[in-house]
Amino acid sequence: MKQIDIARVGEILAASEDVLILTHKNPDGDCLGTGTALCRYLLSLGKRATVTCCDPIPHKFDYLFEGLPQETFEPKTVIAVDVADPALLGSLDVYADRVDLCIDHHISNKLYARETHLCPEDGAVALSLYRIFRSLGVAIGRPMADALYTGMSTDTGCFRYSNAGAEIYRAAADLIELGADNAGINVRMFETKPYSEFMILADAFAGLRMFCDGKVSVLKVSQKMLEDRGADTDSFEFLTALSRQIEGVLCGITMKQQEDGHWKISLRTHEPLDASAICELLGGGGHQRAAGCDAGEDEEASLQTLLSYIAEQLGCAL
Amino acid sequence: MKQIDIARVGEILAASEDVLILTHKNPDGDCLGTGTALCRYLLSLGKRATVTCCDPIPHKFDYLFEGLPQETFEPKTVIAVDVADPALLGSLDVYADRVDLCIDHHISNKLYARETHLCPEDGAVALSLYRIFRSLGVAIGRPMADALYTGMSTDTGCFRYSNAGAEIYRAAADLIELGADNAGINVRMFETKPYSEFMILADAFAGLRMFCDGKVSVLKVSQKMLEDRGADTDSFEFLTALSRQIEGVLCGITMKQQEDGHWKISLRTHEPLDASAICELLGGGGHQRAAGCDAGEDEEASLQTLLSYIAEQLGCAL
Repeated sequence: MKQIDIARVGEILAASEDVLILTHKNPDGDCLGTGTALCRYLLSLGKRATVTCCDPIPHKFDYLFEGLPQETFEPKTVIAVDVADPALLGSLDVYADRVDLCIDHHISNKLYARETHLCPEDGAVALSLYRIFRSLGVAIGRPMADALYTGMSTDTGCFRYSNAGAEIYRAAADLIELGADNAGINVRMFETKPYSEFMILADAFAGLRMFCDGKVSVLKVSQKMLEDRGADTDSFEFLTALSRQIEGVLCGITMKQQEDGHWKISLRTHEPLDASAICELLGGGGHQRAAGCDAGEDEEASLQTLLSYIAEQLGCAL
Repeated sequence: MKQIDIARVGEILAASEDVLILTHKNPDGDCLGTGTALCRYLLSLGKRATVTCCDPIPHKFDYLFEGLPQETFEPKTVIAVDVADPALLGSLDVYADRVDLCIDHHISNKLYARETHLCPEDGAVALSLYRIFRSLGVAIGRPMADALYTGMSTDTGCFRYSNAGAEIYRAAADLIELGADNAGINVRMFETKPYSEFMILADAFAGLRMFCDGKVSVLKVSQKMLEDRGADTDSFEFLTALSRQIEGVLCGITMKQQEDGHWKISLRTHEPLDASAICELLGGGGHQRAAGCDAGEDEEASLQTLLSYIAEQLGCAL
């Protein structure tokens, strides 16, 4: 349960065998990009390695897995990337007690792994792995460059958010020079949405609720709304990002009904609101500006809990 | 009418006096960021200098002008930044024949200035100016860093488009280290939109037209639509960016009625369509992936002209 430096990460990777790389549920570009880049490195060392996730991988990430063997084997080494809490492993939590190494950038990391390399300053865990690779002198080929760039770009909203500092811009520049298809990746990650998502957007904004004198917005999308537009839960990501973009809004809340009927809540905040601290009220967590939680039995009651706390934080009436 | 290198730009700047810096109509973050950064440099040399534009400067750019004197004087030196064609000077075209220096990155530059420093490879003219500053050993303070970062970020869609290469990422990293408020600027440029814009978006998508087997989208927004939602023409930018984001679309066309009643057309394309070449059909121009033109008397006829050409380019029926 100790924290380790890059040199020790190098030792663990060198000694690893039959490596299972775990990513978090609702997988995103950072855990998958970092996971597949690490997998490619281990394969290049002649080791057996594979990346896995409890949830299906959205098709837009297919390119990250190109050429990677999809093997099933009993792992000797288990590595988690971008997984702050074993609860985020979903059905892969059978491995929760035997994670040898966790590489992560969430300040909320539970330090559940035997050894953890934690870089909470990094805008993406892909940056942490890039730093490790540089330190180890790893030859980064194009598929690895694509994978690391994907992680950096997706977790920083394409280098837009406050978690993107000079180091990650410079790392991205290096990766572009190493062949990363930055423009193509960004089109795929940010610039392409089904028609149905735009229609869901219109529907969601028709029901927009505002609180705290316009500082908090709430969008709510039910499964019925998705069905009516032929959309699926992938649409949520777009909406969540937009919720914070309304002028004057410091906290954008998106309530998203899942396929099994229960509700999840996503938060996007501006200063001074700590999204992670707010979501911890309901047992969730994440980053300062982006976090999430489950809404439990009564999603409107959960919303009220969050709203009351946010109003208190902002010193205003609901 | 000759093209010049950085050393010669340095000579011109050193010899300049009472400098009027011209930007293009419908001013954007790149011409204003670059213009104000250049102005700050000239002021630091003890020269008189000011930045001007034929159109009002949108308030979101106010920070670029903080502390800059708003003087009126008869210029001895006239410099145009990001202005490819004197027609883009609008009512400032009285200076069209006496531009001493043009710094630009549009391949379509008409070379109308006495001397032109043209860097068509640069994703933003702010990058061209940054390179000039580095070469001249200019001390870049925070307001200049903010201004240059603004130009780079806005012209590349926040480092998202294919015009963002390794050099511009690295330059942005330098500027962040020099104090540029990258996150704050991006929130201001990309992440803040009035509620009315979201409503216009919903209205516009309700009238979306698709052509060429889903490869071309057309959004049309009239002044009446804007008035009904209490929105203004600033809303167009958001829509224009979204028009290309519909899955399968290679060319997003946005038709935008201006306050005086006439229509403008903006194009955003993916490979293989050259937006600039398409807009040249109607006397417009711009970049490979983003361009615009006026729609003349009959905006629907103009649309048909563009659609026929695009269909030919794509080898498909309308």
